[in-house]
Amino acid sequence: MKFALIGCGRIGSMHADNIAANPRATLVSVYDVFGERATGVAARHSCKIAGSVEEILSDDAVEAVLIASPTDTHADLLEAAAKAGKAVFCEKPIDLDLDRVNQCAAAIAACEVPIQIGFNRRFDPGHRAARQALEAGKIGELHQVIITSRDPEIPPRAYLETAGGLFRDMTIHDFDLARFMLGEEPEEVFAIAAPLGDPELGAALDEIDTAMIILRTASGKMCHINNSRSAVYGYDQRVELLGDSGMVISGNRRPHEARLYTATQAETAQPYFRFFIERYREAYIAELEAFIDAVEQGVPCEVGFEDGRRALMLAEAAYRSLQSGAMVKVEEAGP
Amino acid sequence: MKFALIGCGRIGSMHADNIAANPRATLVSVYDVFGERATGVAARHSCKIAGSVEEILSDDAVEAVLIASPTDTHADLLEAAAKAGKAVFCEKPIDLDLDRVNQCAAAIAACEVPIQIGFNRRFDPGHRAARQALEAGKIGELHQVIITSRDPEIPPRAYLETAGGLFRDMTIHDFDLARFMLGEEPEEVFAIAAPLGDPELGAALDEIDTAMIILRTASGKMCHINNSRSAVYGYDQRVELLGDSGMVISGNRRPHEARLYTATQAETAQPYFRFFIERYREAYIAELEAFIDAVEQGVPCEVGFEDGRRALMLAEAAYRSLQSGAMVKVEEAGP
Amino acid sequence: MKFALIGCGRIGSMHADNIAANPRATLVSVYDVFGERATGVAARHSCKIAGSVEEILSDDAVEAVLIASPTDTHADLLEAAAKAGKAVFCEKPIDLDLDRVNQCAAAIAACEVPIQIGFNRRFDPGHRAARQALEAGKIGELHQVIITSRDPEIPPRAYLETAGGLFRDMTIHDFDLARFMLGEEPEEVFAIAAPLGDPELGAALDEIDTAMIILRTASGKMCHINNSRSAVYGYDQRVELLGDSGMVISGNRRPHEARLYTATQAETAQPYFRFFIERYREAYIAELEAFIDAVEQGVPCEVGFEDGRRALMLAEAAYRSLQSGAMVKVEEAGP
Amino acid sequence: MKFALIGCGRIGSMHADNIAANPRATLVSVYDVFGERATGVAARHSCKIAGSVEEILSDDAVEAVLIASPTDTHADLLEAAAKAGKAVFCEKPIDLDLDRVNQCAAAIAACEVPIQIGFNRRFDPGHRAARQALEAGKIGELHQVIITSRDPEIPPRAYLETAGGLFRDMTIHDFDLARFMLGEEPEEVFAIAAPLGDPELGAALDEIDTAMIILRTASGKMCHINNSRSAVYGYDQRVELLGDSGMVISGNRRPHEARLYTATQAETAQPYFRFFIERYREAYIAELEAFIDAVEQGVPCEVGFEDGRRALMLAEAAYRSLQSGAMVKVEEAGP
Repeated sequence: MKFALIGCGRIGSMHADNIAANPRATLVSVYDVFGERATGVAARHSCKIAGSVEEILSDDAVEAVLIASPTDTHADLLEAAAKAGKAVFCEKPIDLDLDRVNQCAAAIAACEVPIQIGFNRRFDPGHRAARQALEAGKIGELHQVIITSRDPEIPPRAYLETAGGLFRDMTIHDFDLARFMLGEEPEEVFAIAAPLGDPELGAALDEIDTAMIILRTASGKMCHINNSRSAVYGYDQRVELLGDSGMVISGNRRPHEARLYTATQAETAQPYFRFFIERYREAYIAELEAFIDAVEQGVPCEVGFEDGRRALMLAEAAYRSLQSGAMVKVEEAGP
Repeated sequence: MKFALIGCGRIGSMHADNIAANPRATLVSVYDVFGERATGVAARHSCKIAGSVEEILSDDAVEAVLIASPTDTHADLLEAAAKAGKAVFCEKPIDLDLDRVNQCAAAIAACEVPIQIGFNRRFDPGHRAARQALEAGKIGELHQVIITSRDPEIPPRAYLETAGGLFRDMTIHDFDLARFMLGEEPEEVFAIAAPLGDPELGAALDEIDTAMIILRTASGKMCHINNSRSAVYGYDQRVELLGDSGMVISGNRRPHEARLYTATQAETAQPYFRFFIERYREAYIAELEAFIDAVEQGVPCEVGFEDGRRALMLAEAAYRSLQSGAMVKVEEAGP
Repeated sequence: MKFALIGCGRIGSMHADNIAANPRATLVSVYDVFGERATGVAARHSCKIAGSVEEILSDDAVEAVLIASPTDTHADLLEAAAKAGKAVFCEKPIDLDLDRVNQCAAAIAACEVPIQIGFNRRFDPGHRAARQALEAGKIGELHQVIITSRDPEIPPRAYLETAGGLFRDMTIHDFDLARFMLGEEPEEVFAIAAPLGDPELGAALDEIDTAMIILRTASGKMCHINNSRSAVYGYDQRVELLGDSGMVISGNRRPHEARLYTATQAETAQPYFRFFIERYREAYIAELEAFIDAVEQGVPCEVGFEDGRRALMLAEAAYRSLQSGAMVKVEEAGP
Repeated sequence: MKFALIGCGRIGSMHADNIAANPRATLVSVYDVFGERATGVAARHSCKIAGSVEEILSDDAVEAVLIASPTDTHADLLEAAAKAGKAVFCEKPIDLDLDRVNQCAAAIAACEVPIQIGFNRRFDPGHRAARQALEAGKIGELHQVIITSRDPEIPPRAYLETAGGLFRDMTIHDFDLARFMLGEEPEEVFAIAAPLGDPELGAALDEIDTAMIILRTASGKMCHINNSRSAVYGYDQRVELLGDSGMVISGNRRPHEARLYTATQAETAQPYFRFFIERYREAYIAELEAFIDAVEQGVPCEVGFEDGRRALMLAEAAYRSLQSGAMVKVEEAGP
């Protein structure tokens, strides 16, 4: 499958490497508004540098477009690529504004191209094995989901200013993971949050860095999400499923398995992987595989546009709960 | 220190053994309304069987009274023992009714006897080490506490009918542990709950068996508690403290450390300890030590009457949150 | 069962506590050549202080004798107690001299009293579960046993001067454990050893503190034992069984399950239990249970005199291997 | 750096992928006596298929040759490539015959090309971290090394017929790892071995599949290696270093970190990685990095020809020990 990549920053560059390393995929062209970024990726993988997005979308050799540009360009690019008949893999979130997402949904409604949203965590081997254990009946009927999702540090102020807020930027992954694990839609959301990690920055930006959330589905299943941007011990990514006949926990991976024992400590491992590129390496590879599978087989992508939209609806509900201090219904206002 | 024991059921019997095994303590008499229960304990430890509570309270040889009788007798016995000038160790909860607890507080206000409430978890070596790591500054300033507290099965219907409800009976321990770990009072409580484990029994008794709770303190610290009575893999008791420079987790203990590896599995341990007597063995011994220390040194017990009262206040708040669907203030109505 | 205890040092005192805490056992009298040691134990458990060993052996109320006196008295006391018709629980080793052990075997051949040797490790819940997994067919046919057995520090010089050497004093436990796990007799032994921990002390006493040993049975099963007295991270006691359809490992226990995570470390536990009294607490209790069971049921003890003798035979073979630099046959010279 | 690959089987193919994914390396040509193997690799990485080894060695564009052909071709190819002035990365072992290795050493003595032998385990992040902990003084002075090295199954008979025997084929890795960890040369070797996994095949081929080995260095450091080809729970690769102030263990990696808890089990992980390609993925990438570093910087490779020769000397010594039943000196007969 012939891919073009739009956006050659850190995550775009990683996707380029994964495409290049995949025997079923080829990277044919790349584009970035900052030309030098594209140059590096193109040189590394001997592919074309497109002069514009249009050049990519009008190139018949391009079968699939991977969108890894800044968030505020996602919806436009996704629309354009879908209308150009390309299969689309778009990084999360679709947009920070639910109205814009709904418009986008309407705009592409007639397009029959496969669309996948970059909710990589569904493809993490550990998280996936947890879900499979549930599906295989190994823990019985699901009662509770607990998601721990913590970043190792607060991002730079410039990033935070355009990131759309903790729930739309970071928790959006956890909302998707919650839906994936719960197997039914959360109907209600409760949230508390505060800038505990950096109160000053929080006050300046009206931003939060620490949160606790509870979701409830129609059948009464419960999900807790806790977020922090102060996990100095590394990117902390855990999912726990409690069922009536068992539990499964997908835990953190360590860079290696050496452990130290001295007169004052035992079993000391090194800190967890620092961040997502390392921690979710296998997940990024697997989501690409799944995308290629879906496109080749002509079936819907496992995690599509509607999943991106619903995760954002949960983020919106969480913000409303912060305001009201109460559990709120997820609003079903659709596209 | 010369102890009398009131209540010789499962937990009273265990306390009797711990008293007998403690070189600083002697069990001098026991009482139970069901005489045969007292007989067994008395025979095992060669002590007197008292004919009544009064006999115990008027016995000058008795320095301390350990109350392990049914919950609805706690407040009366605690009052009587305190007025009789005995040091009192009373199993949790003080009473299911906050008004009765407040009355009791007033009634014993003038008594200067040491009183300890049986919140054993504070004395668990792992939980305690977590708290000590926090106090020693090893994880910096505390942001989040996550308490996992699950029973292996739903108790018999007869037990549930008088237990006072999940939050007063079971979560009461977690409320105390939350206060112990947070180091400041929770001001607000949010809770959801449902009878997911046994919907039929839940409907019949208007009782719940599964819950998620969030607490918030004045300074913004957050605490999540999750409860279930469907943890078939054993009594699940974990506490996690996230600070701005680290995390500490107190995990579950296993009956032993043998692990199996086969063609289909690796590192398989046996299920966790089934229930509290086994899991908190060291904690029960340590809380007795702490009680004896406090009495001998004439200092307040580490976990006293007011702690029992405050844990119940949190349970009451949790019930109000269930009703309202919102986060509620803890009511400070005092004794 | 009515016990008398001979030898009230650290390990004798612990046995006294275990007897006292066991509902099926009573400690009736104690003896120690250092009277004050006996006084403490007797006071703690309200029992008689015997004026001599003879007083104990001629006391009809005494059903069982627990011998925890210095090693060089074991054989004499065991003989005397057996001839007096008492059930005997004797700490390891029976004697440091195999000839003396063989004489003792001959001397008590006609006595039909139950005799148990204090090879406590067989009764450790983890090690036992490993053996049970093997017996239950969970790992198939056994190929290899790996025993890690390390002390936290080199004992005082005075202790070493009479302890009989590493293999007879410390490895003796591992030799017994190897026999227990292998399920057949080791026929050949190879050993290397050196005073790596304290070369100076080693040279002065002609003693070793670090060793590696290989055992082989008739059917070709292999066992490796490694010993050290420099395990500063705590008493290290592991057993690994490799079979043709799986593996089972019995690992170390930690004092508690709290783990620390910071910017430079993850999952840090505290050091293992310092030494045998703490590490093998459950094992000491269980071996006493097993002894009482055997005596009550009139069946042979699970680990008897011959086991003590055979472990010493392996120690002797290991010393011969050190001399020859070759694998040596275990000499079957019997009693 | 421009690489040519000789030998496109499983391991050669993996090296090709690693070269292609490395931004500092390019795969320019490949060769395999079975042309179709080369075709697949060449197509995947868009490189030339060489018609002969000579074509590769005479190609000035080729800077480095990676030899992953059958063992019996290694020495000839290594010699030819070195004489052609190419940097050489050669899979282990150099040859099964120590005389041939010594000849080879003499033949290339005058060549100043960098040569690296494919002892990948030195580059495993966990094993490396263990070595670094030792070098950093975290465990004090080294006393013992324990290497567990087990394959998940016995290879096909055809493989075994030419593999050169367990010690030269499989244990050779462990001998190198032992040297790497010990930091000084083993002077003596003791070994026992048997065909416990498949006695019939063992008898037919005069081959062994299970072994225990002890090494000793001049200063008295001890190393134990245990080997098996019956580790059905996956490729078992552990290294333990005991020093006088601590211990470090490099353990097994799991494919993911999901764990299952039910009424009959806790913390169950899936079996370990099946075999070396998966288990040592990072190590294969890192050894290539190290090779490129050494060539670029004009410094000797970290693990060179002499390391390959010395590992084989240990294998030879182990076979002599099997014959004699005694610990034998490593013969220093050099090239």
